[in-house]
Order: sequence, then structure tokens, then C-alpha cells
Amino acid sequence: MGELREPLDQTDCGLPVALEAMGERWSFMILRAAFNGVHHFEDFLNQLGIARNILANRLARLVEHGIMRREQMEEDRRKVLYCLTDKGEDLLPAMLALRQWGEKYGLGVPSNPVLVDKRDALPIAPISIQAHDGRSITWHELQWRDRGELGESPEDCC
Amino acid sequence: MGELREPLDQTDCGLPVALEAMGERWSFMILRAAFNGVHHFEDFLNQLGIARNILANRLARLVEHGIMRREQMEEDRRKVLYCLTDKGEDLLPAMLALRQWGEKYGLGVPSNPVLVDKRDALPIAPISIQAHDGRSITWHELQWRDRGELGESPEDCC
Repeated sequence: MGELREPLDQTDCGLPVALEAMGERWSFMILRAAFNGVHHFEDFLNQLGIARNILANRLARLVEHGIMRREQMEEDRRKVLYCLTDKGEDLLPAMLALRQWGEKYGLGVPSNPVLVDKRDALPIAPISIQAHDGRSITWHELQWRDRGELGESPEDCC
Repeated sequence: MGELREPLDQTDCGLPVALEAMGERWSFMILRAAFNGVHHFEDFLNQLGIARNILANRLARLVEHGIMRREQMEEDRRKVLYCLTDKGEDLLPAMLALRQWGEKYGLGVPSNPVLVDKRDALPIAPISIQAHDGRSITWHELQWRDRGELGESPEDCC
């Protein structure tokens, strides 16, 4: 990258903010189960092989950060569902990027089952960094710029 | 998603593999510094405000997992550089996806400086999930399929 660096000692960057909510292995594993349709405390417990107190702690933290929400079931109001919020669903690109990296370097072979687009049943593309016009770009093509130097753009994201 | 689920109790999925290497806040923060051009132990120490023993532990772990490599400096062979490997550089999409999520939900305003494409100095696009043909797709358009049901495709990634 260029000469300009991020101020690494400051925390007003999105990454530390994200890690404050998600910086722990079990939080990702609980989210992964939620994306797979798991909703009940006992199901998370049984399917993840996680200790009860850790699961309770992490679910409370995910709810506190607005990543999941607690809902009472219509048919039995003593039972609680844990559901992904929009904010939680928005973590999927980061989760899939980590998953794809783990597949590429950790497993040797792609894992099964495969994540496909419902429309055509074809596997999704690798998660990549793209320029504003959709070109894939690498780290070596990136540069930091001071926000003040840039024109107004509604697409600013990073 | 569809009815087929991942086997959540198994670890042959890319996500647990990735979290085994990166499942800790400081590992991400060290990588972030490395992407910003930090190479020396003392610079990581000073710029991150991390404890010396934790930094030593996490750098050793990143080297062990092949995410960073140790290099001796030509001019002073007592000094060591920590450099990102190709495997480490490949974590950038996941890091940026987390950063963008943190910006969207944590900060309220986009952070500064801004990551741009060197070619045109325009901010990069949001990291997104795309179908094989480049269409952006959401969680609700995704489905698990057994690998055996799919035709051969060199683009399989997930």
C-alpha cells in the first residue's frame, strides 16, 4: 500500500469495533449455526458441543450487540427463539471469506456441502476485494487516502 | 437457506480451520498492522499497545500457521522482519469485510483514512457475496447442496 497508514493505536476503525462484538471463536461458531437455521438454546448446545455457561454468555453478548434477537414462540411463550437480525445477517460476507480462506489453506479439499445460488444451483464465487466498478483488486493495488482529499461519494465504504 | 444443513459438530469446514489460526482479537490486530507496513517486533509492540508476551505468542502462532514469515534483515542479520505470506495476504477480504461491517454498525461515520484503488483513487466497493456470474446475492438466495449432486466445476470454492 502507499505511505499513508492507518493510526494503529486508535480504535475508531471498523475492525476493532467488529472484533469487540465477534472477536472470539465461539461467537463465529454460534453465528454459523444460526445461518444454518438453529434457533433454540438446546439445539445450539447439542449441535455445537459448547459448554452451557459459555453458550449463555455468548448468546447474551450477541443479543446485546444487536447481532441476534430473542423472540418468544407464539405457541409456547415460555420458549425462546434466537434469530439473526439484519445486522447479524450482514456478517455473512466476513464469515464466508474466512470459511473460503480456511478451505483453501486448511483442508486441501473443498468441504461438503457446497454453498450455491438457489437460482441456478451453481457454487458462489470467491469473496474478493473489488474496485468501485467491480474489478477484482489485490492488496498491492490498494492505497490509503485521507477522506478530506476525496470528492463526495455516496458509495464510500472504507 | 434450504433444508440441507452443514454438519455443525464436524470441524471439516473452512470456518473452524480459519478460526483455529485467527480466532482471537490480537491476531487480527497484528495482521492489520502488517497490512499497514509494520514489520518489526518493537513497532508492533509500540503501535498496537499490546503486551510483549502476548505479541511474541501471537506472532509465533501466525508464523506457525504460515500467515507470516520471519526474515533476517540483509544489513543486520540480528534483526528480524515479520512479513505477510501469500496465505496471509489472502486474509484481506475477510479483514475488510469485518472492518466494513464494523464501520456500518459501530461507528456511524466511515473511518479515516479511506481504502482506495491506486489506479483511480476511488474507494473500494463493499465486500459482498456474489453468484458465479458476479451478481450480488443475499443469505436468502443461498442454499446448501451436496457436492456429489453438482457437476464438475473448476470454480467450486465453497
